[in-house]
Amino acid sequence: MLQNDAKRTASQVISTLAIVGPGLIGGSVAAALRQRGAVGRVLGVGRNPASLDVALAKGLIDEVVTAEQAAQRADVVLLATPVGATQAVLQKMLPFLQPHTILTDAGSTKADVVEVARKVLGAAVSRFIPGHPIAGSESTGPAAAHAALYEGRTVVLTPLDENESLAKDVVVEMWKACGARVLVMTPEVHDTVLASVSHVPHFLSSVFMWQVSTAVDSDLRLAVAGSGFRDFTRIAAGSPEVWRDIFLSNREAVLHELREVRAAFEQAESALQQADGPALENFLERAALARRLWASRSGLV
Amino acid sequence: MLQNDAKRTASQVISTLAIVGPGLIGGSVAAALRQRGAVGRVLGVGRNPASLDVALAKGLIDEVVTAEQAAQRADVVLLATPVGATQAVLQKMLPFLQPHTILTDAGSTKADVVEVARKVLGAAVSRFIPGHPIAGSESTGPAAAHAALYEGRTVVLTPLDENESLAKDVVVEMWKACGARVLVMTPEVHDTVLASVSHVPHFLSSVFMWQVSTAVDSDLRLAVAGSGFRDFTRIAAGSPEVWRDIFLSNREAVLHELREVRAAFEQAESALQQADGPALENFLERAALARRLWASRSGLV
Repeated sequence: MLQNDAKRTASQVISTLAIVGPGLIGGSVAAALRQRGAVGRVLGVGRNPASLDVALAKGLIDEVVTAEQAAQRADVVLLATPVGATQAVLQKMLPFLQPHTILTDAGSTKADVVEVARKVLGAAVSRFIPGHPIAGSESTGPAAAHAALYEGRTVVLTPLDENESLAKDVVVEMWKACGARVLVMTPEVHDTVLASVSHVPHFLSSVFMWQVSTAVDSDLRLAVAGSGFRDFTRIAAGSPEVWRDIFLSNREAVLHELREVRAAFEQAESALQQADGPALENFLERAALARRLWASRSGLV
Repeated sequence: MLQNDAKRTASQVISTLAIVGPGLIGGSVAAALRQRGAVGRVLGVGRNPASLDVALAKGLIDEVVTAEQAAQRADVVLLATPVGATQAVLQKMLPFLQPHTILTDAGSTKADVVEVARKVLGAAVSRFIPGHPIAGSESTGPAAAHAALYEGRTVVLTPLDENESLAKDVVVEMWKACGARVLVMTPEVHDTVLASVSHVPHFLSSVFMWQVSTAVDSDLRLAVAGSGFRDFTRIAAGSPEVWRDIFLSNREAVLHELREVRAAFEQAESALQQADGPALENFLERAALARRLWASRSGLV
């Protein structure tokens, strides 16, 4: 397929890429692939004209097309919209997909996306490779997109039994060309671990920010908030729409994890209620050691 | 007092400063004052010889002395130890304090420090100006100290009715010379607002880090943890001893605030349980707007 494309250069992974939602996530894929010469033409699909103009002006996309046109013309389609939009986009595209078109996504949850893709695409799900780049920023939109976003970061792919191995290879190659490390797991495992290390932190940070900002003395509180507060609440600035969809999509796993966190919360709270210094220090010590070990291993400082 | 000191230069605020615990917090005061020429001699008091050696080698302190010697020789004594050590240090110093010696501290809680200071110092509490610089880092010790730590940051002072105004002025001047902005409030208000914007975030971040790291599949979880996790858990790496003391010192205010946070947690959890999209988005939207507004106002990005 791609191998037969006359326009393909030595390092080119994809001849024509369509990005549905060329914002931070999708736009950064385009920027990274362009920088490496790994993509030919980039088509952009979106509902916000101002945002598409920014993507054009930054050179992230070459032209704006409809979902239908993208399905007809692209070799690879990357869905980089909030997960709630997946179904509608796939439905629009399905009748126009070429036999060789590969589909992938960048959604933060996977089991629900897989369910939707199977339902909408039918047999064509063999060319839908579900994915999730573990990268982002509290800044959103194409203005924040940049070629280095995925450099050294992890991208999780959750391939399906039905997937064609060539389609898988192309998506793996695409992410590697962006500088990412690819991890493969099932959609269910993905959703369980992401509920823990991504969705619960966003939930807690947002709950906390909401509680502080609605207190009667919130102005004074916020005036003495320092760098710890800054770091702890940074994720709470993320897109409410995107995160609403994530929580709803991964509801069961998040609720399960919140129950686990609440049990830990209550254990620590009880140590504080009893003014149990050794128990408090023990819990703080374990948390501090685990965090320091993670920092040294992950390279995310 | 200081005005009569022959060694004082035009910009010098303090002739001889003693720092009890010249680590990140105390050492950075020394570094900042030295850079501005605002201090003459700096004496260091501590219990960890290796740490004192680093402070000497970095030029943060000029010599190592005992608490008794510091009381005899210093014009200003800055206590920069975990708050649990305040009582023992003040007791050692009291018999040796000069009539002009000014005392201040950098403890993260204030009501308990004031209670201890009143009890130990008696009438001499008139020269104890309680303070709390809202600055820090997950790195600790003199190796992490640097002159810019307080640049543009907030220092809360909680002066007492008994305080001499000259003593207050000197401490205000000291922090301004470090580049900080000084806010004045009562010890009780300080402890209430800090419980909210500092102690609760540390509690939640540590509880979460502890819960993740003790899960059976913690390795996989930590392998897909990204930048949101990194920011949210950064404070959990802080000193367990320091934070144990903070929680114990400000127990009532922290427990009260945890109950408020739990109520907000349960409200958001209930919206998720009911799959109530508009309620979820509303809460996420309020949190995001509040966080973005705070970032633009605080200058802490």
